[in-house]
Amino acid sequence: MGVLVVGSVALDSVKTPFGEIEDALGGSATFFSVAASYFTEVAVVAVVGRDFPEEHIRLLESKGVDTSGLVVEDGETFRWAGVYGYDLNDRDTIETRLNVFETFRPTIPGKLTGSELVFLANIDPELQLSVLSQVRSPRLVACDTMNFWIEGKRDSLVELLREVDVMIMNDSECRELADEPNLIKASRIVVGMGPKAVVVKKGEHGAMMTDGESFFSAPAFPCEEVFDPTGAGDSFAGGFMGSLAKTGDISASGMRRAVIYGTVMASFCVEQFSVGGMASLEWSDIEGRVRALKDVTHFEA
Amino acid sequence: MGVLVVGSVALDSVKTPFGEIEDALGGSATFFSVAASYFTEVAVVAVVGRDFPEEHIRLLESKGVDTSGLVVEDGETFRWAGVYGYDLNDRDTIETRLNVFETFRPTIPGKLTGSELVFLANIDPELQLSVLSQVRSPRLVACDTMNFWIEGKRDSLVELLREVDVMIMNDSECRELADEPNLIKASRIVVGMGPKAVVVKKGEHGAMMTDGESFFSAPAFPCEEVFDPTGAGDSFAGGFMGSLAKTGDISASGMRRAVIYGTVMASFCVEQFSVGGMASLEWSDIEGRVRALKDVTHFEA
Repeated sequence: MGVLVVGSVALDSVKTPFGEIEDALGGSATFFSVAASYFTEVAVVAVVGRDFPEEHIRLLESKGVDTSGLVVEDGETFRWAGVYGYDLNDRDTIETRLNVFETFRPTIPGKLTGSELVFLANIDPELQLSVLSQVRSPRLVACDTMNFWIEGKRDSLVELLREVDVMIMNDSECRELADEPNLIKASRIVVGMGPKAVVVKKGEHGAMMTDGESFFSAPAFPCEEVFDPTGAGDSFAGGFMGSLAKTGDISASGMRRAVIYGTVMASFCVEQFSVGGMASLEWSDIEGRVRALKDVTHFEA
Repeated sequence: MGVLVVGSVALDSVKTPFGEIEDALGGSATFFSVAASYFTEVAVVAVVGRDFPEEHIRLLESKGVDTSGLVVEDGETFRWAGVYGYDLNDRDTIETRLNVFETFRPTIPGKLTGSELVFLANIDPELQLSVLSQVRSPRLVACDTMNFWIEGKRDSLVELLREVDVMIMNDSECRELADEPNLIKASRIVVGMGPKAVVVKKGEHGAMMTDGESFFSAPAFPCEEVFDPTGAGDSFAGGFMGSLAKTGDISASGMRRAVIYGTVMASFCVEQFSVGGMASLEWSDIEGRVRALKDVTHFEA
């Protein structure tokens, strides 16, 4: 099974206490694609401007990513600039210039409408719904969102939730969407809104998944050198969907395995700027961290 | 092996969005003792005033807690009052009246100076050191602290850390003591200050333990009904030390098991005011949650 991702491809300018970078390859679909590329065939649908460096497209293609759905339009590429404080949990967005992304209306190329696994990265839920209307009976659809849409397009988001299988969101978004501070209750409430499972990303505290009945808790990989958290959530989603695609196992057990692979890909992502930490991994690097996570959670009782 | 705990026995007035209670049985040594009582013999050294209700002492004794080191002095019992907001992670202390606790100088009764396991609950590190000078070669000493001592009595705390085996603290305290925002690095730094292991309590995000080499991560028990978090950390410590005492296993594997039992006792604590959630458990209740945690963390990869 291959994976289709629809989201943003952007140029990020990021400053952390450890360094800064300008106009680096970023965007949700980018991080997702590079992470998922280690597991399966990935096709990306997104838009960039004429200024988008050819080398970035070559990087994606070198990872085997199908960029035939990456539309180049007149105008400038989506740009995001952010600054992280010393503790890396606080992020200030300095600038968001949507540019060609502002009028992005995703069109799924004919050959991709039969995609079995679909990831709707964080974009306007109305566009996420429009993507769903273009794909024929995918086996599993997962999506992400953000507080901006929870507050501004709640009705569309609620409609979308009825159509997706897995909602992947961070803890504050989950609490906000459910209007419930207890995360266990909140995640159950979101499951009640439609998806079969909700995966809650908690940054340094790992991830949690529930189908409304049972709960799975995965720790973060113990990273000592967190350099730049940008893209961690999308890399998590890439590892998650990639694992489902590679194994073809979307059972409860397969979903737990997918959370672990997501955790591992996020851990590589945060170790360098942009996709640097994920650009040239060996499969043994990934498996090594999966084994480490097994050890980190192991106990006899 | 029995456990000796030195800390506070207090009367707590707590208000949460779900209710309020006045002058309820509280204090670090209380929560610790009740939690540990399910595992082993516990002896408490603390001080209360003449106003301390006899029924509270009877409750401790009904759990088999040795209260011969609970001194009754002229004056009033330590009182604490706090209010929790809707999300229960924010707590405002409304009032702290130390009363007889202000001049507490713990004296370990002769028959307890040979205690094999010692828990130094959160009190002035100078007093914690004085307790250590009174006990003969315990097998394992664990301690807790708080930001107040990290900021105000750092030198004594650093001296204490060289003498203890396990430091049990919360995440913000760990970051503050190490002056390092990355919790993985921070916990290693604290290990470098002396203890063989550091256990970091992260509330709803569970707990983490390291010996400076390997890391263990335990999720919180997925509690939907968190009623009052007061005492959760001390109940965790009680389950932790109780488990070590019950099994006599202080190996790395025994310590991991202890973190799990600590997690379980904290989960019972937060479900009711005061020690209500832990007052009348069956061993099967505890084992049931240990099995549930095994399932919560299980994955095949």
